[in-house]
Amino acid sequence: MAATLKDIAREAGVSLSTASRVLSHARNGGDPETSTAKRVLAVAARLQYVPNLFAASLRTNRTHMLGVLVPHLTDVVLSTIYEGIDEQASASGYQTVVANSMDEPHEHRLRAERLLQRGVDGLIFGDAQVSDPYLDELTLRKVPFVLVSRRHHPYDSVTCDDTTGGRLVGNHLADLGHRDIAIVAGQPYASTGIDRTQGCLAALRERGIEVSPQRIVHSGFDPRAGHLAATRLMAGSSRPTAIFAVNDMTAIGAMGALRDLGINVGRDVAVVGFNDISIAADLPTPLTTVRSPLKEMGAAAADLLVEKLSDATDTSHSSPTEKRLQPQLIVRESSDVSIDSRSLRVQRSAKTV
Amino acid sequence: MAATLKDIAREAGVSLSTASRVLSHARNGGDPETSTAKRVLAVAARLQYVPNLFAASLRTNRTHMLGVLVPHLTDVVLSTIYEGIDEQASASGYQTVVANSMDEPHEHRLRAERLLQRGVDGLIFGDAQVSDPYLDELTLRKVPFVLVSRRHHPYDSVTCDDTTGGRLVGNHLADLGHRDIAIVAGQPYASTGIDRTQGCLAALRERGIEVSPQRIVHSGFDPRAGHLAATRLMAGSSRPTAIFAVNDMTAIGAMGALRDLGINVGRDVAVVGFNDISIAADLPTPLTTVRSPLKEMGAAAADLLVEKLSDATDTSHSSPTEKRLQPQLIVRESSDVSIDSRSLRVQRSAKTV
Repeated sequence: MAATLKDIAREAGVSLSTASRVLSHARNGGDPETSTAKRVLAVAARLQYVPNLFAASLRTNRTHMLGVLVPHLTDVVLSTIYEGIDEQASASGYQTVVANSMDEPHEHRLRAERLLQRGVDGLIFGDAQVSDPYLDELTLRKVPFVLVSRRHHPYDSVTCDDTTGGRLVGNHLADLGHRDIAIVAGQPYASTGIDRTQGCLAALRERGIEVSPQRIVHSGFDPRAGHLAATRLMAGSSRPTAIFAVNDMTAIGAMGALRDLGINVGRDVAVVGFNDISIAADLPTPLTTVRSPLKEMGAAAADLLVEKLSDATDTSHSSPTEKRLQPQLIVRESSDVSIDSRSLRVQRSAKTV
Repeated sequence: MAATLKDIAREAGVSLSTASRVLSHARNGGDPETSTAKRVLAVAARLQYVPNLFAASLRTNRTHMLGVLVPHLTDVVLSTIYEGIDEQASASGYQTVVANSMDEPHEHRLRAERLLQRGVDGLIFGDAQVSDPYLDELTLRKVPFVLVSRRHHPYDSVTCDDTTGGRLVGNHLADLGHRDIAIVAGQPYASTGIDRTQGCLAALRERGIEVSPQRIVHSGFDPRAGHLAATRLMAGSSRPTAIFAVNDMTAIGAMGALRDLGINVGRDVAVVGFNDISIAADLPTPLTTVRSPLKEMGAAAADLLVEKLSDATDTSHSSPTEKRLQPQLIVRESSDVSIDSRSLRVQRSAKTV
């Protein structure tokens, strides 16, 4: 009988996933880079291992392709995460294919099915919504998948620790003396907005600051939605002195709304975003935000899925892996006018030359 | 160097076609049926032969996959183009796979080769640079490809009509009465920056306005680069009254620089960008720019490549197809403070309800 991956791993004295990785790398034209890799290949050659690239069963029918689903690849947050996914997948010998679902449940299912028909070995979802019967179905069908960016119990996921991120914002605004704070909370179906909002509220509560329900508005994740939301927040008889928008794009829209109302961002009203997209630091009023380790999230998600695919054992009974990467508060002029964020950056660059 | 089919045939003492047949059979999951076949496979394993997964002749072996190369998918311009490519390709029954080249010639070649090894039927390059020997090589190898976003004679391409776009800007600034105009011209290897700059200069020349060489600076395409470039432009004894930055990201950086210098964008110095990325309209000072039909460009490029793949005839002697889609000037507050771009937009939306 032909040699299997297991035979090679055993003979070479390495784990199944190591053997798999070395052989995928070779299959994709890479040269063996370590003595371990060379040993694995020598064993494969000696055992006359023929990579069965199009075998019958799902376990062995590996195309070494991973499907990635995101709401919009034009959203720099998701394209950055995807970059991390693709680099890590590539290093492990996998090609990725990405598709947009527009955050529409119908498209989410349709595009995922299409990727599975194409023969992807597993899926990474960046577009999970809070109640999604499709993910249950995939679990029953034993399709390997992980979530990224947005989490959903009880599935494996890699996200930013959004709750902690929200807490960082709550504490920052409390430190600055704000007592009347508003939150533009994003879409109610996304764990990102939910966790960031809850984290912020929890930190404020601990500081003795309550946020009334009227100060929490839902919105889309784009600048226009943020603009509308901020306009509404400023339309009442009393106005908040700070706005936390759960992502930078929304924050940018909110800043535009404030400017239209003749309000000075940073001095009159503080604005805080989330993600630290590259443009945040370079805005006319640089944006205070929470830096989310986007590429690392993508890489960790790819890693988690590749591990699942290499793992021959049935892990359906073990508890889910919910990996949360730590965020970092980045203070800039939109909340603290005493900060000179640009010269800080220049100094930092000079140090690294 | 990796073993080739020729090496294997020679070592095993068989013809090239026999070796090829045996390996294809194995690749498709078949067991070796003769002693000759077993010998060929043993040689292949010993020489660590990496199968060219989807045979050399593109004519007979269609994976219905297209490879797409972009500098950075995190650049919303390219991800929007890619969205257009993917939708159109999908409608024609093709899956797309995208890769980043970071605008590095080494990566450009490496990622393209990897996609070809994966068996894509053709390539779409969004990262062409002005002198690229690799594209010549692909032409000699008869690999079907088209360019998108950046053009390069004599290859087929779909771009925005960047020259006309530049002319629109030149005329707009001349209409506003500017006589001392600066251009942040992007990278010298990209046709986008070159054509937009040339178009602008041509229109200005026709209006009797000359731009001195010191007023034209090259830069990267990101906000930070635009910030640096604008700072340099404002550092001289005399200052331009208008800056044309050849893409919106650079324009945003330029606006930041002006603000740092206490200069009012729109009132004191006009800033114009290019592309009309979604954030342009929602900036604190909405950005005047040239709208580039990005999704349509992607769709047309996919269409052009699919056509090439469907066409059995050899078209290597016909003149290249250089499709240029028409751009549109979008005037906002960053060049004309009399404009109220936001209410115009509200009115427009109301009309379509």
